[in-house]
Amino acid sequence: MQAARSLGVDLDSVCGGRALCGRCQVTVTEGDLSKHGIESRLENLSPRGETELRYAERRNLPENRRLGCQAMLLGDIAIDVPQSSQVHKQVVRKPHEAHDIRINPATHAYFVEVDQPDMHDPSGDLERLKVALRREWDLTDLRMSLPALRDLQSALRKNDWQVTAAVRSDGEIIAVWPGLVTKLYGVAIDVGSTTIAAHLCNLASGEVLTSAGRMNPQIRFGEDLMSRVSYIMMNEGGEVQLTAVVREAINDLIAEVVADAGLGLDEVVEVAAVGNPIMMHLLLGLSPVALGTAPFALASDAAVSRPAADIGLTINSGGYVYALPCIAGHVGADTAGVLLAESPYDRDEISLIVDVGTNAEMLLGNRNRLLAASSPTGPAFEGAQISAGQRAAPGAIERVRIDPDTLEPRYKIIGCDLWSDDPAFPDAIPASGVTGICGSGIIEVIAELFLAGVINADGTIAGEAANRSDRIMADGRTFSYTLTGGDPGISIQQNDVRAIQLAKAALYAGARLLMEKLGVDKVDRIRLAGAFGAHIDVKYAMVLGMIPDCRLDSVSSAGNAAGTGARIALLDIDSRSEIETRARKVEKIETAVEERFQHHFVAAMAIPHASDTFEELARVVALPERTTQTATKGRRRRRQ
Amino acid sequence: MQAARSLGVDLDSVCGGRALCGRCQVTVTEGDLSKHGIESRLENLSPRGETELRYAERRNLPENRRLGCQAMLLGDIAIDVPQSSQVHKQVVRKPHEAHDIRINPATHAYFVEVDQPDMHDPSGDLERLKVALRREWDLTDLRMSLPALRDLQSALRKNDWQVTAAVRSDGEIIAVWPGLVTKLYGVAIDVGSTTIAAHLCNLASGEVLTSAGRMNPQIRFGEDLMSRVSYIMMNEGGEVQLTAVVREAINDLIAEVVADAGLGLDEVVEVAAVGNPIMMHLLLGLSPVALGTAPFALASDAAVSRPAADIGLTINSGGYVYALPCIAGHVGADTAGVLLAESPYDRDEISLIVDVGTNAEMLLGNRNRLLAASSPTGPAFEGAQISAGQRAAPGAIERVRIDPDTLEPRYKIIGCDLWSDDPAFPDAIPASGVTGICGSGIIEVIAELFLAGVINADGTIAGEAANRSDRIMADGRTFSYTLTGGDPGISIQQNDVRAIQLAKAALYAGARLLMEKLGVDKVDRIRLAGAFGAHIDVKYAMVLGMIPDCRLDSVSSAGNAAGTGARIALLDIDSRSEIETRARKVEKIETAVEERFQHHFVAAMAIPHASDTFEELARVVALPERTTQTATKGRRRRRQ
Repeated sequence: MQAARSLGVDLDSVCGGRALCGRCQVTVTEGDLSKHGIESRLENLSPRGETELRYAERRNLPENRRLGCQAMLLGDIAIDVPQSSQVHKQVVRKPHEAHDIRINPATHAYFVEVDQPDMHDPSGDLERLKVALRREWDLTDLRMSLPALRDLQSALRKNDWQVTAAVRSDGEIIAVWPGLVTKLYGVAIDVGSTTIAAHLCNLASGEVLTSAGRMNPQIRFGEDLMSRVSYIMMNEGGEVQLTAVVREAINDLIAEVVADAGLGLDEVVEVAAVGNPIMMHLLLGLSPVALGTAPFALASDAAVSRPAADIGLTINSGGYVYALPCIAGHVGADTAGVLLAESPYDRDEISLIVDVGTNAEMLLGNRNRLLAASSPTGPAFEGAQISAGQRAAPGAIERVRIDPDTLEPRYKIIGCDLWSDDPAFPDAIPASGVTGICGSGIIEVIAELFLAGVINADGTIAGEAANRSDRIMADGRTFSYTLTGGDPGISIQQNDVRAIQLAKAALYAGARLLMEKLGVDKVDRIRLAGAFGAHIDVKYAMVLGMIPDCRLDSVSSAGNAAGTGARIALLDIDSRSEIETRARKVEKIETAVEERFQHHFVAAMAIPHASDTFEELARVVALPERTTQTATKGRRRRRQ
Repeated sequence: MQAARSLGVDLDSVCGGRALCGRCQVTVTEGDLSKHGIESRLENLSPRGETELRYAERRNLPENRRLGCQAMLLGDIAIDVPQSSQVHKQVVRKPHEAHDIRINPATHAYFVEVDQPDMHDPSGDLERLKVALRREWDLTDLRMSLPALRDLQSALRKNDWQVTAAVRSDGEIIAVWPGLVTKLYGVAIDVGSTTIAAHLCNLASGEVLTSAGRMNPQIRFGEDLMSRVSYIMMNEGGEVQLTAVVREAINDLIAEVVADAGLGLDEVVEVAAVGNPIMMHLLLGLSPVALGTAPFALASDAAVSRPAADIGLTINSGGYVYALPCIAGHVGADTAGVLLAESPYDRDEISLIVDVGTNAEMLLGNRNRLLAASSPTGPAFEGAQISAGQRAAPGAIERVRIDPDTLEPRYKIIGCDLWSDDPAFPDAIPASGVTGICGSGIIEVIAELFLAGVINADGTIAGEAANRSDRIMADGRTFSYTLTGGDPGISIQQNDVRAIQLAKAALYAGARLLMEKLGVDKVDRIRLAGAFGAHIDVKYAMVLGMIPDCRLDSVSSAGNAAGTGARIALLDIDSRSEIETRARKVEKIETAVEERFQHHFVAAMAIPHASDTFEELARVVALPERTTQTATKGRRRRRQ
C-alpha cells in the first residue's frame, strides 16, 4: 500500500491499512519481466503474517491474493491491482449500453482512530476527528454538516473512539458511524410522470443491489403533466400537495429497495434523480406553473446538489441529493440522463436519440454539435387515447401478425411466450386473460393492417376490406378491425389509427426539424430510449414512418437510458460536471415556435410519409420469415 | 457614482443608480483646494435634474446633498462621501465600549432588472437573474439557495421582472423580493441559561431598532446548567425537548422585536448568536451531555454558519445563523463575544476581563498572549443560594450603606432612585415593596458589615456585635443581621456570607491562576462584563477581594459585552474570521484540573484575602463622601 501510494497507483482502502476492510487486495505476476528490467519473484513478498492470516480466515481471502496493507516488499516484484481493488474501477455495462461507468462517487468512507479529549488541551470532537482524517488520510479543509455533528459525539464514544467518516469530495463530512463501515450506498431515481423507479447501488463497486418501481401518486391530481399543472393553477397550495406526494412515494421506494437489500436508510448517503422538467420542479419544491404556458421558463436549468433533508428525502441525515440539469422547458433532467448515458458528444457519427414517453425528447448530433427538442407526441404510444389501449403490463398485447390474405391475426401478450395460435396459449396466459393492447402492440397491428392493405396511406380503414373479412366492421361512418373476440373484444377503431398517426407525425416532424437545423438529411444511427424503445420492433416503426430513414441495423434500443444516466451521476462525480457542461452547450429547439415543425408534421401524417422509405425498407431489411412476404404482398396489394 | 467606482471610493447603492434607494448621497466642499491642486466649484456639478428632483420631493433630500448616481461632474470638484453613504461605515458605540463597529454585513441587497424569458433562447429564471447581477453589479460565481429559488419565479413576475436580491459575500443568493428593497435586518441573540436577549439591527446602518428579553424556558427542566444536563441524561430525548423550547423562545423573541419595529420576518436575513457551551449545543441541536462531566469535550469548538432553517429559527427562509465559536468546554461563545467586543488582543496593557454569570468566565492577557478560564463561582452573585436573594429586578435591594456606629442600614432598590431613609421612599417604591436582595446588594451589605466590624476577616458574623445593635441576632450557633423589618424581613445569614465567600474566592482564584500562568502579579485594567458587572460597585468588589489589585480607575464595566460581540459578528463579516482565529489562539486553562486553583481558592476565602489589598484600596481610592470614613473607621474597628 505504501508503494502504491508513493507511485500514485490507484489502490482502494477504507480501514487505512489495518487489515480490516479487505479493499486493498492485490495479486502477483511471477516470472521474468525483463522488458521492465526485473525478475518478479514471489519470495520477494513477505509471507502472510498473523494479521493477514486472521483476515483470510474470517473473510475468505483467495489463495492468490494478498492484502496490500500487510504484504511487505522484500525485493523486485510485479504487483497487479485488480479492477475490484481500484478506487476508480469501471462498472461493465450491458452490451446495448454506450460505455462502462467509471466509479468515482462523491462520498468516500474513511476509518480513523480519533484522539480522546484531553482536559489539559481542550478541543472539540470535530476538531480531533479532523486531526485524525488529516493524519491518516491526508484530508484537509474539512467541514462537517450539522446532522453529522449531532451523531459524532455518540459515535466516538460507542466504539472506543474508532469511527468511519463519510467525506464528500468537496470536504464536507456528512456522516459518521461507530467502528468500521466499508460500504456506502446510493439510490438512482427516475421520476416519470406515470411511474417512479429506484435502483440501489453500492457506491464503491457500482453494483445494483435492488430495484423497484411504483406509480407516481400525482396521477390522482391529473393523468398527464398539463392537467397536474392546471390543478396547481386552480388550487391554492396545489404545488405543495404534489411535491409532498411525490416525495412520499420516493421515500417509500427508497425504503423498499433498502429493506430488500437488508440495509438501513442510514447507509444511503446519496440520491441522484432524473425526470422531466415538471417532475424535477415538483421534486425540488418549485412551482411548475411557468412551465405550463409559453415561454415555458424553468426556475433554473442548473443541476441541484443539496442535502437530502432540504428536499424532504429520507436517507442518512447528512446525505445529499443530486438532481441532473434540465436542458430546456420541455427537455428535462431525464434527457440530460439520456445524454450522459449515450454520450453522442463522444462520436463522429450523427446520432438521433429519442426517448418516447408522453412526449418524445430528442437529441441529434455528434461531437461537433448537439441539438435537442421535445415533440408533443401525446400518450398514444403509451396506450393512452387508444380505445383498447393500456400500459405495458401482463395481459397486454405487445406483438401482432395479420395474415394478408385472410386478415386473421395472431398475437403475443406480455407475460406469455406463446403466440395466440399456439394450442397451449389459452392455458399459458394469466387468469385475467387478454386485457388490452400496449404501445408496441398498437404500432404492430396498424403496420400489419397497412401492409395487408386494410389501412390506406392516409390512415383510413378501407371499407372495401369488409368484403375480405368480417373482422372489418362498419362503425357509423368509419370502420374498425376486430383483433380479438370475447366480450368486450379488442378492436382497432379509426380514431385509434388517427391517434397513432398524430403521435408518429409529431415524432417524425421533431426529428426532421432537428435534422434541418443541423443541416443533415440522414442520420447515422438511431437510439430508442425508454420502455417503449425497448419493446418496439423497429421494423414496424419504420413501416409507419415514425423515425427517419436509417439502416435498420443502425437502429437500436438504448434501454432505460435516463435511469442509466442517473446511475452514472450517482457513481461518478466527474460525470456531473460533464453533463452540466454538455447540457449547457446543447442547442435548444422549441417545436412550439418553429413554423417548419408544422410543415413537417402535416407532411408526416401519411403512412409511409414518403414513398421511397418503403422501398428502402424492403431493400435493406432482411425481414425474417413470413413478414418479408407480407411486406411485399402488402405493398403490392396497396398499389392495386 | 461612476467616478467613485473608478476611483475605488466606498459609495453605497442598492438600486444600482436608478435614483430610488437614496443610499449614494454625497456633499460638496467648495473653495480653493490648492493642496489638492484644484479649485472646487459648485457649478462644476450638474444641477438637479428631473429624476433627482422627484426623489428629493418624495424622500426629502437635504438641500446640501446630491444623489451620487444623478449628479454629473462637469469639472474639478471636491465630493465628500458622508459616513452614512459608505458601505463600510462605522457605528459609534457607547463610551464604555471598546471601539466602534465597522459595518460590513455578510449579506447585501442588490436591485436588478432581469431579462424576460425567451422561447427562442430558453434559460432558467435563476440563470437570467445571474446575468443581471453580473451585468449591473459585477457579481460572479453566484449560486442560489433552494428556498430563494422557490420565491424567485413569483418575485420576478410580480413586479415586471425587477427584483431585489440578497446576496451573501460567499456568492449565495439567499433571498429575492419583488421590486426595490433597500433595508435588510439581522438579530443578535444572547442565549443565557436564565434569560435570552435579542436585538434587531439594520444591517446597513448598524442601528439597533428594538430589543427584547425573556426567561429561558429551559428553566423548567432545571434551574442551573448541570441540572438541565442531568435531565437530559435521565430522560430519553431530553436534549430534543430542551432544543425545541429554546428555539421556540428565540423564535418568539425574534417575532417580538420584528413586530415592535413594524417589520416582517421576511426582512430578517441573519442571526448571530452567543451563549455558553451548553446553550450553544442545545441551540444547534447537539447533545451537551459530554459537557457535564470531565473531560468536558465540546462537539466542536468551531463557529457554525448554517441556514436558519437547519437550526429551526424562523426568519427569511433563506436566512443564516452564525454561532460564534466556543473557546473550551466551560468557556463558550458568550466569552468569544466578550473577546470580540473587548479586543484585548489589540492592547499592550494586560487586561483582565471577567463575565460574571452562574460561572465567571475570564480572559487575561494582551496582544502577545491571551488565556481563558471559567471559575465555578456558582450562582450566588446572581442572588441564588442566598436566603433573601433574588435576581436583579424591580423591588430588589441593589445598594446598601450601614452606619458603622449604629449599624443602622439604608438601601436603594431597583426601580426607585431614592435611598430608603428618604421620607418619600415608601411612596416611591413599587406596590410589591422590597422583595429581596440582588447580587450587587449582597456584595455591598457584606462589605459594609465587614467595614463596620460586624463580619470578621474569616467571614463569621461576630456574636459580640449583638451588643452594639439588636439587628445582630443569634440564630442557633451562628448570627444574622436584620437588614429590613417587616414579615418576612430581609436578613443576612451566616450561610449567605459563606456562599459569597465561596463565590468570590472562586473568582479571585481563577484570576490568580491565569495571572500565574501568564507570569504577571498585577493587571493593568479590569473589565467587568455582564449585568452583574454593570451593577456592581467595584469598590465593594475590591473590599471583599473578589478581583485582583488594580487601580480603581482602571476597573470598569464592559456592559453586555457578550451581546455586543454578537452584534459585531452580525454586522461585520470580517469580525467572524477575526474571532475564529483569536478564539483558537486563546490558551485554555481548565480550573478543575489545576492544583494551583485549589491553593488560590483556599487562600482567597478570607476578607480581604491579603492584608495589603486593603491598605492599597484605602490609599488609592478617593472614596466619595461618607464611604471613605466608613472604610477608615471599619478598618480601625476591625483592628481593635
